[in-house]
Amino acid sequence: MSSQSLDELITSLKCLPGIGQKSAQRMALHLLERDKAGAERISRAISTALETVQHCQQCRNFSDNPVCGICADSGREQSTICVVETPADVLAVESSASYKGRYFVLLGRLSPLDGYGPEQLGLEQLQLLLGSGAVNELILATSATVEGDITAQYIADFATKSSVFSSRLARGIPLGGELEFVDSGTLSRALSGRQRFD
Amino acid sequence: MSSQSLDELITSLKCLPGIGQKSAQRMALHLLERDKAGAERISRAISTALETVQHCQQCRNFSDNPVCGICADSGREQSTICVVETPADVLAVESSASYKGRYFVLLGRLSPLDGYGPEQLGLEQLQLLLGSGAVNELILATSATVEGDITAQYIADFATKSSVFSSRLARGIPLGGELEFVDSGTLSRALSGRQRFD
Repeated sequence: MSSQSLDELITSLKCLPGIGQKSAQRMALHLLERDKAGAERISRAISTALETVQHCQQCRNFSDNPVCGICADSGREQSTICVVETPADVLAVESSASYKGRYFVLLGRLSPLDGYGPEQLGLEQLQLLLGSGAVNELILATSATVEGDITAQYIADFATKSSVFSSRLARGIPLGGELEFVDSGTLSRALSGRQRFD
Repeated sequence: MSSQSLDELITSLKCLPGIGQKSAQRMALHLLERDKAGAERISRAISTALETVQHCQQCRNFSDNPVCGICADSGREQSTICVVETPADVLAVESSASYKGRYFVLLGRLSPLDGYGPEQLGLEQLQLLLGSGAVNELILATSATVEGDITAQYIADFATKSSVFSSRLARGIPLGGELEFVDSGTLSRALSGRQRFD
């Protein structure tokens, strides 16, 4: 290779998820040949994010300030908390525009073998929050996997002890899903959870 | 969104070719959650590349120094020059490991409508090089498109005037290509350019 710093740029871009040698090369050449302003913007955005992004003290989501915008927003329902696994899940729920409460981000799910116990998930913090009496409902929006279910069950148990009502996301056929292509597990959950026509 | 700098990071990553909102979001969260060292490396590599990468004075390829490593390498044949369109093409030819001469990078192809004339392609510089008498053969490795062909023809014409022998890459069926799936244009070129069994 003729340029070491181009080489290093290509290698560094391979740190991005799903980017291999060929894509990294294409990206690096694109930035240098056609979008130097964009390149500078990415470099700056990464430094800024690394410097300023922290975890919100209340909900553990990513935030620029000690308390994130959602937690600080007094317009949101303070009595409902949606428990999710990752910051990406917060983005997903927010994009549905049908939830107006607060969040609690576990940053993982119970998985003792991987070293994720109640402590890593900040469950003590969540328990304190439930004990404060300010919360009426806990929506358990962990992922629909075995570990996600166990995590939800664990949290639901101590919510009950704090006399907080807990619910979880409905399981069933996704919108636009054709029965033919829905997997049998989902279909079985959709059948057992069938709802009355009103 | 709860964090402005995360927001800006996601938006900036969309400058990368082929990266939309979803992928940018995945990349940004991956960097912040799982690979801060990688993030720092990318940011640093981009700044360094923007500062140091320039075009080689001899071959116009990307280089950290005024003259690139390939042009400065006295072990390479000085008398053969391979003319390519982009720095990516140099990488491609280098990876074939079957060329040991020097390069000349056009950084485009003749396309008057897009504002690419002989001047933009540095053809004056190439002409001077040919006139110096140091070059015996010019390999025209422009792309196999109409514009690439025209560019090659144009350069071959003034190479002939400088009495420099010019050749171009063989056209035909790619390695592993099955006749059934080869397009008719390629097949017709492969037929007309058929080679004797030795």
